[in-house]
Amino acid sequence: MNGADPESGPVDEFDWIDRCLRPLAKDAPEAFDLLDDAAALPSRPGFDLIVSTDAIVEGVHFRPEDPPGLVARKLLRVNLSDLAAKGAEPYGYLLSIAWPSRFGWPQRRAFAEGLGADQAAYGLRLLGGDTSATPGPLTASVTILGWTPAGAMVRRGGARAGDVVLVSGTIGDGWLGLAASGGQEGFTGADADWLSGRYRLPQPRTGLAPALRAHASAAADVSDGLIADAGRIGRASNLGVDLELDRLPLSPAASAWLGGQPDRAAGLLGLAAGGDDYEVVCTAAPQASAALLSASAAVGIAMTEIGRVREGRGVRVFVGGREQAVSHAGYRHG
Amino acid sequence: MNGADPESGPVDEFDWIDRCLRPLAKDAPEAFDLLDDAAALPSRPGFDLIVSTDAIVEGVHFRPEDPPGLVARKLLRVNLSDLAAKGAEPYGYLLSIAWPSRFGWPQRRAFAEGLGADQAAYGLRLLGGDTSATPGPLTASVTILGWTPAGAMVRRGGARAGDVVLVSGTIGDGWLGLAASGGQEGFTGADADWLSGRYRLPQPRTGLAPALRAHASAAADVSDGLIADAGRIGRASNLGVDLELDRLPLSPAASAWLGGQPDRAAGLLGLAAGGDDYEVVCTAAPQASAALLSASAAVGIAMTEIGRVREGRGVRVFVGGREQAVSHAGYRHG
Repeated sequence: MNGADPESGPVDEFDWIDRCLRPLAKDAPEAFDLLDDAAALPSRPGFDLIVSTDAIVEGVHFRPEDPPGLVARKLLRVNLSDLAAKGAEPYGYLLSIAWPSRFGWPQRRAFAEGLGADQAAYGLRLLGGDTSATPGPLTASVTILGWTPAGAMVRRGGARAGDVVLVSGTIGDGWLGLAASGGQEGFTGADADWLSGRYRLPQPRTGLAPALRAHASAAADVSDGLIADAGRIGRASNLGVDLELDRLPLSPAASAWLGGQPDRAAGLLGLAAGGDDYEVVCTAAPQASAALLSASAAVGIAMTEIGRVREGRGVRVFVGGREQAVSHAGYRHG
Repeated sequence: MNGADPESGPVDEFDWIDRCLRPLAKDAPEAFDLLDDAAALPSRPGFDLIVSTDAIVEGVHFRPEDPPGLVARKLLRVNLSDLAAKGAEPYGYLLSIAWPSRFGWPQRRAFAEGLGADQAAYGLRLLGGDTSATPGPLTASVTILGWTPAGAMVRRGGARAGDVVLVSGTIGDGWLGLAASGGQEGFTGADADWLSGRYRLPQPRTGLAPALRAHASAAADVSDGLIADAGRIGRASNLGVDLELDRLPLSPAASAWLGGQPDRAAGLLGLAAGGDDYEVVCTAAPQASAALLSASAAVGIAMTEIGRVREGRGVRVFVGGREQAVSHAGYRHG
């Protein structure tokens, strides 16, 4: 110890774990202060542990100039969105991260602070991690863990013909927000800021988990676009899905954007195909739909009926009663 | 379907999951054919689920010219090595991978085949995954899951003053293998090939898990170098560790290399500081050491006593009874 600022100069990966990550595991006795590079999770009889993993890559899923704290929060939130769609309660996560050398102490501390903020907001604890250097872009992967009562995970494959299709929140903001973040023409002022925020900091619908477990027959989160993710429910259920885009729930900002489009149907298709909404699309038996709507309203999350499950295969998309050609089944990262 | 080879041209991430990853989850009903992007693990009363994560980055942990199948196997094995040191039985894993565009179908198929080979060899199943593109180097992270009887995970912090320090297999081969793989001077012929293989395809000591649970007081895998990893046991146990390098178990290839070194003590220090051995260093009460030696011999893994745990802090290293200055506490990736 020579009295120099320990957070000047290049970052030692182990120092970063000690200083920035260990505090994030302090409420997790099962993580042993991260001293063991492994956690031991006691069995929880009557519950299933739900596990899922999602990564983000600089230049693919976020922009190099995005603040590190925001990137960290987005990383947790895209994973939390997966849990929400499964009807699972957040529990903990493991983090694996590869740092470019230009990320020094201030950036790494900001990243850890972002993790800490959303851990607290969503009831997560850090259970383990791995950190290394990379000559390439910042690349970070989270494995998230959650709980459902035994056998209660909401599957993608549980839809039945005749089920109603519902979606939470509003659709298309993520896609517009990506365009707005990039300074694309036609986005200015308060709407641009709001849309950009929707893209950069999704609101995972964790509050919906109990309602989905109780009332939904199938669910998926909307990460690759409503059409693509509704299609996954159809595919996993061996059924087709019809979506009526006139019923798409739109934010005021998305409505304003749509109003300025020369081709309304093409605009609706863009919103329904665009990714990064992190809403939940789900199906419910017709007699369960009202209960789902009121249970979600009770936790402050609007849900909207937007279609039906049918015999057959694939997603059909309608505007004004006319089927639309879907050339682009949804944004695929990468 | 136009009859064209579906595995020509650029790779769609979802196609890769369908074709190459889904078969790796076929024995895991809890992974739902990967259709849900999440697995549901039933509780297993009487057992703890051990979770750990480890990533590898092209150019940092492996060389760009390494065959993809070998990279995949190394990725699983470095994670299996963590489980082994915890005394845990392998169960399953989640994979997160970011592919550079130059990895086409042949490379990705080879990667999946490598995973499949080692899944079968070590009793693993794929439980989930995430795949995306990257403009940077191949970056892959595994979260591995294993089981121990409740409360039986072998910790790093369990060592007591007076305990014996033991290590499995042979030490220094990974470090020499890295040099040999790079065509460094002084490595030729059969020894070079063997050492290179030790570096490129570690042998995780999963067979030691029951013996460690029964007889070890603390354990860690040797990934960053014997001195560094023994030091972690000392640190987590709030104790010091003394290592006698004259007792270091060496392979014939490492012995031959050491014989050619002008400074034997410096050579031994290099072997003990070098990384990538993926052996297990552990501690045991003096009265338990014989049982540990015979239980490990019974599963075909040699263990060797190489030191003692003592009051105090830090690792002291001795050659010929003289303490050596340790300038480099072990290789730190990145």
